[in-house]
Amino acid sequence: MGALDEGHFHVELENGVMKLGSLEVGFEQEPETLAIVDAVQVLLQGLGEDINREGIKKTPLRVAKALREGTRGYKQTVKDIVQGALFPEAGLDNTVGRAGGVGGLVIVRDLDHYSYCECCLLPFQVKCHVGYIPSGQRVVGLSKLSRVADVFAKRLQEPKRLADEICLALQHGIKPAGVAVVLQCLHIHSPSLESFFLGSNHQGWVKAIVHSGSGVFEIENADAWGDFLSLLKFRGLDVGRKPLKDSMEQSWCPYQSSSSVKLVGPANPEMVNAVASILKSLGEDPLRKELVETPSHYVKWLMNFRNTNLEMKLNGFVGGIVDPHKSNGELAHGKGQIQSELNLPFWSQCEHHLLPFYGVVHIGYFSDEEGDQTKKSLVQSIVHFYGLKLQVQERLTRQIAETVSSLLGGDVMVVVEANHTCMISRGIEKFGSNTATIAELGRFSTDSVARATFLQSIPASLAS
Amino acid sequence: MGALDEGHFHVELENGVMKLGSLEVGFEQEPETLAIVDAVQVLLQGLGEDINREGIKKTPLRVAKALREGTRGYKQTVKDIVQGALFPEAGLDNTVGRAGGVGGLVIVRDLDHYSYCECCLLPFQVKCHVGYIPSGQRVVGLSKLSRVADVFAKRLQEPKRLADEICLALQHGIKPAGVAVVLQCLHIHSPSLESFFLGSNHQGWVKAIVHSGSGVFEIENADAWGDFLSLLKFRGLDVGRKPLKDSMEQSWCPYQSSSSVKLVGPANPEMVNAVASILKSLGEDPLRKELVETPSHYVKWLMNFRNTNLEMKLNGFVGGIVDPHKSNGELAHGKGQIQSELNLPFWSQCEHHLLPFYGVVHIGYFSDEEGDQTKKSLVQSIVHFYGLKLQVQERLTRQIAETVSSLLGGDVMVVVEANHTCMISRGIEKFGSNTATIAELGRFSTDSVARATFLQSIPASLAS
Repeated sequence: MGALDEGHFHVELENGVMKLGSLEVGFEQEPETLAIVDAVQVLLQGLGEDINREGIKKTPLRVAKALREGTRGYKQTVKDIVQGALFPEAGLDNTVGRAGGVGGLVIVRDLDHYSYCECCLLPFQVKCHVGYIPSGQRVVGLSKLSRVADVFAKRLQEPKRLADEICLALQHGIKPAGVAVVLQCLHIHSPSLESFFLGSNHQGWVKAIVHSGSGVFEIENADAWGDFLSLLKFRGLDVGRKPLKDSMEQSWCPYQSSSSVKLVGPANPEMVNAVASILKSLGEDPLRKELVETPSHYVKWLMNFRNTNLEMKLNGFVGGIVDPHKSNGELAHGKGQIQSELNLPFWSQCEHHLLPFYGVVHIGYFSDEEGDQTKKSLVQSIVHFYGLKLQVQERLTRQIAETVSSLLGGDVMVVVEANHTCMISRGIEKFGSNTATIAELGRFSTDSVARATFLQSIPASLAS
Repeated sequence: MGALDEGHFHVELENGVMKLGSLEVGFEQEPETLAIVDAVQVLLQGLGEDINREGIKKTPLRVAKALREGTRGYKQTVKDIVQGALFPEAGLDNTVGRAGGVGGLVIVRDLDHYSYCECCLLPFQVKCHVGYIPSGQRVVGLSKLSRVADVFAKRLQEPKRLADEICLALQHGIKPAGVAVVLQCLHIHSPSLESFFLGSNHQGWVKAIVHSGSGVFEIENADAWGDFLSLLKFRGLDVGRKPLKDSMEQSWCPYQSSSSVKLVGPANPEMVNAVASILKSLGEDPLRKELVETPSHYVKWLMNFRNTNLEMKLNGFVGGIVDPHKSNGELAHGKGQIQSELNLPFWSQCEHHLLPFYGVVHIGYFSDEEGDQTKKSLVQSIVHFYGLKLQVQERLTRQIAETVSSLLGGDVMVVVEANHTCMISRGIEKFGSNTATIAELGRFSTDSVARATFLQSIPASLAS
């Protein structure tokens, strides 16, 4: 095994064909790809979408690529990764203690990964902290700890099993005195309508902290855990004292307990079958106990974003409540003070990759009256409404601005800040990235002072 | 162009050979790879290393892989990336303003990239913020903004040119109303001995903030910049008001101004030639104006880490100052209070990848006397000494512990916290990751209360 086994060599793709020197391999033609493409077309049709619409006509292929990339761990083995990267390293000479290749704890912290929830097929984020205590005068290349974690993250998973599999694989691969793994996992909530209207904090994530230990870390209150947890503390992660307690909400995946996800009627059987065929194409067994309900969970998630014809109704509804035209027939441009509704949460689904994006919307408008709860609820409903369909952030921003302008007058500014799952859960993996979009209507489009005044009212949210 | 052109398809490597279905391509046998391998062997020999030593015998191949991967942008073109990902998107209907596919600013913030400094061949970190104002009723897939940035980052670069090239490429590729790019760049300092002994803050990075604008962003004080900079502010990046001033220290690369890097004598010509051949193998012209001095700069950097025979002398020196054996012939185990020297900075060079790693060392020991400046300076010298060679963090930790124990008694605990450039500047790209290692000598290895007491004295440093 050489250094080349350290990971993956990037191969250019041109015209949808993988080029490798003079060789060409048709990824698009592989049966697994074709099967997923077919299945995603069924899902899009089930959502009421026109699969030939420009924005989504290549979505099935994008989804196929993302899913196959995101589950490539099934085809990887840890032995190949670790074996070329074990290096001789001395321990202590004639001194009592632990250091170097014998006994000196090594821990790599804050490794960002993502995985796919086996219960609902949505990606979840993983911050991985992994360490081991070398023995036998050898250490492993640091990047291998991340690469091994990645092998198991790139499968359909559940946090505790993910931690256990990483731990076990490193124990077998390195044969150290012990391996310790702590994972902080974040799963998105289900965007239930109830949570919006009841004002519950749907922006909160389902969080889980899980751990796994082998060798000297097998005993929960072993001394070794004390050192390990202290080293995590330095990074601002206070997971408590040993013995470390896993903290995982009763239902990690919101789709696990059916009571938390109410949906009228059973899932569309064609869509369910399509998702089952995707599981099979990824190399999984759709009949595996943990996967039996996954297709219907995923379809339930997806159906939150189905295409509807409600748009006209909502516009009518809004127009009926507040007349944007004053009695003199002119739009109420730029009257009053700049008011703002900030940090209105939303969920949406990226139409290019069928992956969630979510964040907050800030809305500025002119009015003599400050915002009240009724106005806030109405605006939040509009935000919610336009989120719950296949979207792109640019369109979402425009649609919110247009609709809100009919409610709050023609001078409206909308800023949408969002995290896109498609920016982390595919080859791109830009974990800290965040997208902002702006729409400026009426006076806001011409008055830079008004724009600046509104923008200054938005509180800074430090990068997560 | 299909969705497949969105990036790179990962191909498994086994036994150093790229496997693609049943196809095998010998990356190791490609002439560019072989040339870099040869050149790195010359460099290792120039550092006084045995190129057959277990830890480094595969280093030349690892370096070749990292460099070719890190400069793959030379073989990529932006047109291919952007063209498949332009989507029709409406602007506003019958409303004055800007939104969606016409005029609605889109900005993707906090994209982590790395690039190679063309002046010294070391990687530098780039936090990229990039945006554009759509026109012509079309928007580009968000990930393309990152992928285009990556094409230019993965070349030998200088911050301002990198910003300009990203900006120009997006302007040509998307043809929007304007493109804006702001880069925050971090370059490591040169680990000069002077800076250590003069106590200057060598941990500080050389920072640069540069920007580039096209279209409506071409004018420095354009309104559009106001919106753009406000959106950056929300992420805690206050780069000031428009017009944005680039902030770049006089000499971005410490090797640019020869005065800041003192080194006795000229660089070894064989090593300089080897680096020039690497530049050529990467597809660069070693005679390009900006690259003429690069080989000697890189060799000067590298020579900070040459193998020396000083170890014995230092041990003798230390042993002469403080006798670890008390008059009764026993080591001074566990006497006195736990004292600590915290946050001692160090630089080192990873022997597996010839890439820097750097961070801080914390040392705990038992003594009745609190640490004084002399003791701190001595300990810092030891840390510095063991950093300045080809290293692995585990060995560095052990060596510091062993040497310090001869100075401060047999009961010593050492914690090293480090960022490894090899964890970000290769395929792995785990930007936030950080590695901690521990050595426990004497009483610290058996007394968990002593360990915990020392570990609690280390201040938490939130993940950067």
